[in-house]
Amino acid sequence: MPPPIKALTFDTFGTVVDWRTSINDDFRAFGRRKRLGNIDWRALIDEWKTCYRPAMEAVNDGRWPWTTIDQIYRRKLDEILPLYGLGDLCEDDRVFLNRAWHRLKPWPDAVAGLKRLKKRYIISPLSNGDVVCLVNMAKFAGLPWDLILCAELFKRYKPAPEVYLGAIAYLGLRPQEVMMVAAHNYDLRHARSHGMRTAFVARPTEYGPGQRDNLRAEEDWDVIANDFGELAAALGA
Amino acid sequence: MPPPIKALTFDTFGTVVDWRTSINDDFRAFGRRKRLGNIDWRALIDEWKTCYRPAMEAVNDGRWPWTTIDQIYRRKLDEILPLYGLGDLCEDDRVFLNRAWHRLKPWPDAVAGLKRLKKRYIISPLSNGDVVCLVNMAKFAGLPWDLILCAELFKRYKPAPEVYLGAIAYLGLRPQEVMMVAAHNYDLRHARSHGMRTAFVARPTEYGPGQRDNLRAEEDWDVIANDFGELAAALGA
Repeated sequence: MPPPIKALTFDTFGTVVDWRTSINDDFRAFGRRKRLGNIDWRALIDEWKTCYRPAMEAVNDGRWPWTTIDQIYRRKLDEILPLYGLGDLCEDDRVFLNRAWHRLKPWPDAVAGLKRLKKRYIISPLSNGDVVCLVNMAKFAGLPWDLILCAELFKRYKPAPEVYLGAIAYLGLRPQEVMMVAAHNYDLRHARSHGMRTAFVARPTEYGPGQRDNLRAEEDWDVIANDFGELAAALGA
Repeated sequence: MPPPIKALTFDTFGTVVDWRTSINDDFRAFGRRKRLGNIDWRALIDEWKTCYRPAMEAVNDGRWPWTTIDQIYRRKLDEILPLYGLGDLCEDDRVFLNRAWHRLKPWPDAVAGLKRLKKRYIISPLSNGDVVCLVNMAKFAGLPWDLILCAELFKRYKPAPEVYLGAIAYLGLRPQEVMMVAAHNYDLRHARSHGMRTAFVARPTEYGPGQRDNLRAEEDWDVIANDFGELAAALGA
């Protein structure tokens, strides 16, 4: 018998919050306030997000020094704004847009599910977002985390082992006592390789209607659920 | 004009929770359950606590490698139990007693004050307690932290500069935007030396009826309050 689960760590972008819809709504409202006219916000956002994976890899490979997500997104934002007719935006506007990652809305089931789970388990993000981003997002979205665990504490990004192992160590638990919750199979594969329990929550529209990856669980994860309500039920919370 | 305060960081042992009364009640209940007879719990606890300051200094001076508070208290507990007729306690009992630091009760005003402050500010411990201790304590006592900042994240203990500066950096704020709240003047002196705002909350019975230090504010701290209600009122929360 494995030991009982004591803590749940959550991938955040995509698993807890719907970043793509949130940023799209946020940027469109910004465009209307500023009377910016016809901008292809959807394409801008999708191009913006492409910087994420290569930057994580550059940090983890040691090609880049530690660089926060805030800095990574800001560099890419500055690079692409001119391509969408927005090269004239002032510094304050750029800071505001870059902070869209702090103003993300939860999936409809997320807050209620987390509140149920919090009564029985320690709940924390285990995200590649920065501390300040995750704190601001929690206050904005009402996410009731017990603590904030993230890549910035370890100066390495998921899926580097230091992030999973570091979180387990801070929690003072054995790997089997901690369950990783994610909408991404690769995250769970790495968590399981370190002895963690795993829960897949399907978020088939994270990347929009054309999403092709992570539409379903690709391994026999300990829990497979369609939302946080099903996850809480499966864990007796 | 200084910038507005955005986050409050709290010393925890003594400032938020009444460790001395809590551990005394906890140990006496343990003694009754185990029928241990007449033990001088008060003296045991006060002797136990004496290991704290020298151990912090040993780590900060580099004489000891990083050592968690849990380990520090456990070593001292093992050393003194025989002096109080408790040398025969089993491993499970020792773990239980050492975990008394995770089961501390808040001062009567603390939870209500924190809930008010949380609506307007980011609130976090900035404690020498370990992550797991602070998380368990928050769940036990109902402390509504937004995140957990503590010495363990920086592998140095307060009043080492790395702890204050590291907390400010993770919050993504300027020092003046962060207020340190403590019942201990030395903690505020260090916080102020790094540019933080300061609030003194008097806890004149932390060390019992014979307490001589920290009975009152020793400098013109930005806020001086008798409890967290007064602190919240002073900060418009």
